Amino acid sequence: MDIKNYIESIPGFPKEGIIFRDVTPILEHPEAYKKVTDELSSFVQSVQADIVIGPEARGFWFGIPVANQLNLPFVPVRKPGKLPRKTIEETYQLEYGTDTLCMHADSLKPGLKVVIIDDLLATGGTVEAIVKLVQKQGAQVVGIGFVVELDDLKGKEKFKDIPVCSLTHFEGE
Amino acid sequence: MDIKNYIESIPGFPKEGIIFRDVTPILEHPEAYKKVTDELSSFVQSVQADIVIGPEARGFWFGIPVANQLNLPFVPVRKPGKLPRKTIEETYQLEYGTDTLCMHADSLKPGLKVVIIDDLLATGGTVEAIVKLVQKQGAQVVGIGFVVELDDLKGKEKFKDIPVCSLTHFEGE
Repeated sequence: MDIKNYIESIPGFPKEGIIFRDVTPILEHPEAYKKVTDELSSFVQSVQADIVIGPEARGFWFGIPVANQLNLPFVPVRKPGKLPRKTIEETYQLEYGTDTLCMHADSLKPGLKVVIIDDLLATGGTVEAIVKLVQKQGAQVVGIGFVVELDDLKGKEKFKDIPVCSLTHFEGE
Repeated sequence: MDIKNYIESIPGFPKEGIIFRDVTPILEHPEAYKKVTDELSSFVQSVQADIVIGPEARGFWFGIPVANQLNLPFVPVRKPGKLPRKTIEETYQLEYGTDTLCMHADSLKPGLKVVIIDDLLATGGTVEAIVKLVQKQGAQVVGIGFVVELDDLKGKEKFKDIPVCSLTHFEGE
């Protein structure tokens, strides 16, 4: 089975000139979802992670099945105002403006080995912010897993010292 | 194991006078996450559902593990502007103002038996809107599952003809 058959390319979403890589067909096909989960789980095991982290909302789609399969804790990263306990925050640059991500301040312990899972690697800004959130808590990012990598956007260059696993590869535009 | 031990009560979030029931400790404790998934999966099997639906973002946390465990498709319900293909929408009342939920227009087929999973039943407005989205596509809601039900808000009364399964019960305020 080729996972790419379950990723739909939508030209012009969310705006003109972008080809959006839609992973929702994976969720709707259990055999594809299982294959994605198995492959990402193998990667997480290979880097011997203690815990899985994923950003809302599409990072939940793939981080949670991996954490469940490996019996590991899952820690959600969310937008401001969504997590009810004390949080730590990291603000990062977008093409226009900034965005902020939050994690519960008590969610990681120093020394923990963390894997970050998200649906798609573009320029890598989101995951770079999550790496900083992890390091602020004294934990270590030992791997980053994606379902889709947009090779020409070169996001991987932001993570030279961290193993990156991408299940499929596309061009960004 | 009592699932209630993994639900934290946060007074004053998101605003004064509310006690927020925080389910993130479930995600961080695999043994609790498994118990929640097992119990909701038993319910979904008992109503013989073909497919699991959950709204962003906390509905993903519990709907996806259930769909994975039972080898069923998962269909996400999202806020406007997030789903890239053609969508159907439903707008519903909040305490102040309105909110809108979307589902891909091709995600359900007539006759399908659907279960909706969300983290928490309060007044039931969100799930009532999802029931309408399902019915618009000619499918049938055969059950609704929650991790938490706030009994005094009487949300269950909105779903008199649909089996509702709530794993824990609290007062709303």
